[in-house]
Amino acid sequence: MKVKVSRKEHFNAAHRLYNPAWSDEKNAHIFGKCSNPNYHGHNYEIIVTLTGTPDPETGYVFDMKVLSDLIREHVTSKFDHKNLNLDTEYFKGLNPTAENIAVVIWKILRDKIDSSLDLKITLYETERNYVEYPAP
Amino acid sequence: MKVKVSRKEHFNAAHRLYNPAWSDEKNAHIFGKCSNPNYHGHNYEIIVTLTGTPDPETGYVFDMKVLSDLIREHVTSKFDHKNLNLDTEYFKGLNPTAENIAVVIWKILRDKIDSSLDLKITLYETERNYVEYPAP
Amino acid sequence: MKVKVSRKEHFNAAHRLYNPAWSDEKNAHIFGKCSNPNYHGHNYEIIVTLTGTPDPETGYVFDMKVLSDLIREHVTSKFDHKNLNLDTEYFKGLNPTAENIAVVIWKILRDKIDSSLDLKITLYETERNYVEYPAP
Amino acid sequence: MKVKVSRKEHFNAAHRLYNPAWSDEKNAHIFGKCSNPNYHGHNYEIIVTLTGTPDPETGYVFDMKVLSDLIREHVTSKFDHKNLNLDTEYFKGLNPTAENIAVVIWKILRDKIDSSLDLKITLYETERNYVEYPAP
Amino acid sequence: MKVKVSRKEHFNAAHRLYNPAWSDEKNAHIFGKCSNPNYHGHNYEIIVTLTGTPDPETGYVFDMKVLSDLIREHVTSKFDHKNLNLDTEYFKGLNPTAENIAVVIWKILRDKIDSSLDLKITLYETERNYVEYPAP
Amino acid sequence: MKVKVSRKEHFNAAHRLYNPAWSDEKNAHIFGKCSNPNYHGHNYEIIVTLTGTPDPETGYVFDMKVLSDLIREHVTSKFDHKNLNLDTEYFKGLNPTAENIAVVIWKILRDKIDSSLDLKITLYETERNYVEYPAP
Repeated sequence: MKVKVSRKEHFNAAHRLYNPAWSDEKNAHIFGKCSNPNYHGHNYEIIVTLTGTPDPETGYVFDMKVLSDLIREHVTSKFDHKNLNLDTEYFKGLNPTAENIAVVIWKILRDKIDSSLDLKITLYETERNYVEYPAP
Repeated sequence: MKVKVSRKEHFNAAHRLYNPAWSDEKNAHIFGKCSNPNYHGHNYEIIVTLTGTPDPETGYVFDMKVLSDLIREHVTSKFDHKNLNLDTEYFKGLNPTAENIAVVIWKILRDKIDSSLDLKITLYETERNYVEYPAP
Repeated sequence: MKVKVSRKEHFNAAHRLYNPAWSDEKNAHIFGKCSNPNYHGHNYEIIVTLTGTPDPETGYVFDMKVLSDLIREHVTSKFDHKNLNLDTEYFKGLNPTAENIAVVIWKILRDKIDSSLDLKITLYETERNYVEYPAP
Repeated sequence: MKVKVSRKEHFNAAHRLYNPAWSDEKNAHIFGKCSNPNYHGHNYEIIVTLTGTPDPETGYVFDMKVLSDLIREHVTSKFDHKNLNLDTEYFKGLNPTAENIAVVIWKILRDKIDSSLDLKITLYETERNYVEYPAP
Repeated sequence: MKVKVSRKEHFNAAHRLYNPAWSDEKNAHIFGKCSNPNYHGHNYEIIVTLTGTPDPETGYVFDMKVLSDLIREHVTSKFDHKNLNLDTEYFKGLNPTAENIAVVIWKILRDKIDSSLDLKITLYETERNYVEYPAP
Repeated sequence: MKVKVSRKEHFNAAHRLYNPAWSDEKNAHIFGKCSNPNYHGHNYEIIVTLTGTPDPETGYVFDMKVLSDLIREHVTSKFDHKNLNLDTEYFKGLNPTAENIAVVIWKILRDKIDSSLDLKITLYETERNYVEYPAP
């Protein structure tokens, strides 16, 4: 029988939604105030969920301290107090919507964690908007 | 690979649990103080979750601003600051339990949103009681 | 040196804002949807704060278990799952605004608690609207 | 179509992570400060989720008051204000990790609730660490 | 006897801490990652608190709907989805620390609200950092 | 005009309420389950609030990063994952009620922070019970 374990971390970042294939007018029309040229920002909350079988010796699916360290080393140290569009390699050609940020974080962490464990990312952009990847 | 996107809204309403096929005594016995004849009320929190593939041009599964507008137009404008039993058409012959309210909201929104997107409703009646529909 | 101690409890109730000295039109104009004739409702959160000197033998300003019991016996048992306008004696001639509910709760509890302790009531009507009484 | 219903309760307990088959050094190395010999503690939040079909007469999948009473009688009365390692029978030979506590609670409640209802336990050890059992 | 009433609103903005009288090195030394040249951002929560005597006819110190509208018209419409340093007049010559943002909001609202009511601003920059102005 | 700035941190600890001048029976009678001989525990949330005038060069009353570091070095490193009664020097002769813990934290931090700044400690023992010291 499997157990899910989840760890919550956070980062604060600026971003702007923008499709370079479109005119500024179309960007403003589609993305509204989220496309403000001078950026806006969020306190992002990230939840990393692993699914697996508890180790009989430790009773852990995964050590939450180790998971916290992995998220901080590979994700929040790169995104915290950054401009996602300008300061990170991940969104040079990718629009930093909550959907795309969650997929990027999943790809960063997937090969840092044993493949026997399922991995899911939940990302809160605000208390009222959040996304989960992958969806079953 | 699919992504889930969720938007949270809220409404404040009065309601009463009551089955008209039963005596008042049986209603009081089964529903307890939730059947108070003069009603009581809640701050309901509603989370609407859509599952789909992000559009490659926008990076959105669904525009959260549009989803917020849909929920406000079709759900919270009808339920907010209302008596669910007396002021809405939906609970004339249906007991307004959290379970039934969630199913009603799902039915209201299902044909407003493209059928390629899965739709789930989460309804918090209090911080301690909540329901989700449909359950897989 | 004094310490403040606070205990949070909750109740769920229906209410309606209404001034019987006014016409229905004026009530609707002034109170808007809060004056819906069939009532609406809230999950009220109540915080009771006492200020005093810790007892040297217990280290308590006041036993939080005793405070919880006092609030449940004298406040939430009377307001929970009730219609504040119709089911309680307190709002027969008093509009159940958050301000007035807080004052009523303060008056109920003031003579149940030793007068050497300052008493303050904080009442959340929603997560976004709350009141405190008395204000210094 | 099925609905999930969830009820949240809480308990406050002390615990220590420790594998008696290991040396104290190995316990300290693997479990870090969670293995402090004199224990530490948490405010645990427990969410019990049942999945089933609403009863057509009540509109309930399960009466939340009855579920709350079941959790209090069989779980929180045994764990609240206790030392999980020393004061409960469940962790005499089982390390009280969040994973194992969730499995124990599931086993306690499984035969108290009709088998037609799926049962899931979510346990928050802190706001940042939580587990779910069983995982699909 | 006076009552305090509070209304919570929010805005999402980018900012950067920077003192133009200092070298870039000194800015980086003093403000650390908060001085990132390409900005970062936050979900700001703003609470506006008014202290006064309830009106005997309404039972209100102040209509929370009117207060919400005032905050949205004069504050959040100017700050939401903006870069505080570049897109607003208020921080052209003022460092947008939480302290300074709270003082600016107080100054904006002070002459929109009757001077018989005390005004206090609470600003959450994150869940873990917040400020209040004025302090008694 | 002064501004208050607040920083929230947390620690997880075990404790037991006990007055050694009393019999075990009296301890059990007065402190109830909080006096369990094998301890219980909490996720404590601590908020440190400083009141002062923002520095005109930085716009800060106090650097929140420095305050966070001070709290971690002098408070949470000593209390986190500890038994307050057995593992700390502060509660050898002092009952670890929330009131007394708040006073101890205030005394620890008072001489680490410039005396021109007022200092207040808020301590949440649970979401429902919290204390503040000093009270004006």
